Amino acid sequence: MARVKRGLLLVVSGPAGVGKGTVNAALMERHPEVKMSVSATTRPPRPGEIDGVHYFFKTKEEFDRMIEEDAFLEYMRVFGMNDYGTPRAFVEQEREKGNHVILEIDVQGARKVKAACPDAVTVFIAPPSLDILKERLVGRGTETQESIDVRTKTALEELKALPEYDYMVVNDTVDEAVAEMEAILSAERLKTERNTDLITKLTGGEPI
Amino acid sequence: MARVKRGLLLVVSGPAGVGKGTVNAALMERHPEVKMSVSATTRPPRPGEIDGVHYFFKTKEEFDRMIEEDAFLEYMRVFGMNDYGTPRAFVEQEREKGNHVILEIDVQGARKVKAACPDAVTVFIAPPSLDILKERLVGRGTETQESIDVRTKTALEELKALPEYDYMVVNDTVDEAVAEMEAILSAERLKTERNTDLITKLTGGEPI
Repeated sequence: MARVKRGLLLVVSGPAGVGKGTVNAALMERHPEVKMSVSATTRPPRPGEIDGVHYFFKTKEEFDRMIEEDAFLEYMRVFGMNDYGTPRAFVEQEREKGNHVILEIDVQGARKVKAACPDAVTVFIAPPSLDILKERLVGRGTETQESIDVRTKTALEELKALPEYDYMVVNDTVDEAVAEMEAILSAERLKTERNTDLITKLTGGEPI
Repeated sequence: MARVKRGLLLVVSGPAGVGKGTVNAALMERHPEVKMSVSATTRPPRPGEIDGVHYFFKTKEEFDRMIEEDAFLEYMRVFGMNDYGTPRAFVEQEREKGNHVILEIDVQGARKVKAACPDAVTVFIAPPSLDILKERLVGRGTETQESIDVRTKTALEELKALPEYDYMVVNDTVDEAVAEMEAILSAERLKTERNTDLITKLTGGEPI
């Protein structure tokens, strides 16, 4: 259909090791109209990192000003650590162009974004089971036993927030998970509340 | 995924001539797990009509008893006319088997079903424009000018109820419309509120 309309904001959470990054990357590869949100940070760029692509690199002062100007959908400050935030402008500009924006974020961040942006669509990517998640973490070969224990414990805590999300996608296989994300994007665009302009046009007393 | 779960109830409305029947038939042909709701009626069967397939044929007394027993999701009685109703049992049985049930119904009926069954998914099939709807009605070659005028006027009234529906599918082409219905079915099954059993299982203290 030729309708040009505002894209969606897709908030995606899920435990470490569940494959969020892989699913989102595959989704973006198949759909050029899906973009990843770019975070702002006060951390200095690492070699090869490009401002505006990997992050928006900000000084502490710039970050402070952005907070004052309500320029973040959400941000996180921990004393003595680098700051991270989601600039509103990037998300807005892409959505206005009709692109969908994915925001990979933890449960706390997702709550803040949903409060700031009630029309955000929230998706939790879940493992088929906690055992399988643990196997995947072990399979990475880079995690210590302690780190695996911490991550599986955290995963269980995160899974308890699942009912707060709109949708759950179980990452059995990447292809299935991507197909499910595609269905969510398609269906959300068909919600009547996202088509008020079209409805007005259809019922707007056009001569028949 | 191997999850066996309750199917959806899809309430489908749309003006005469929009192609609801064609879209639903194509959807059912591609998805054997999608069934059409079978109405009960006091009208006598026409030649070739099979009880339980085309309709559940009921006497006035049987229909009365079904009303008393709250056996209808909705029904319509007009004095001196045949009665029509949607038996709850058929819809329930199919949904319990994991099948999705389509209920083609007008705006009034859709409201009753949504009230009786709040987890129903409501879809309005809309024409690309009222002009195109009118062309389709003219194209049938079976409608008088008067009938076309009445139908387009009714269509405009029905379109005003669009915001009450969850989703709108614009029937540009049958293939696109069917793909959109498929996306709605897929996405709705991924809603967290429809996966409480799975969430309980995932967080249910399985040893990790």
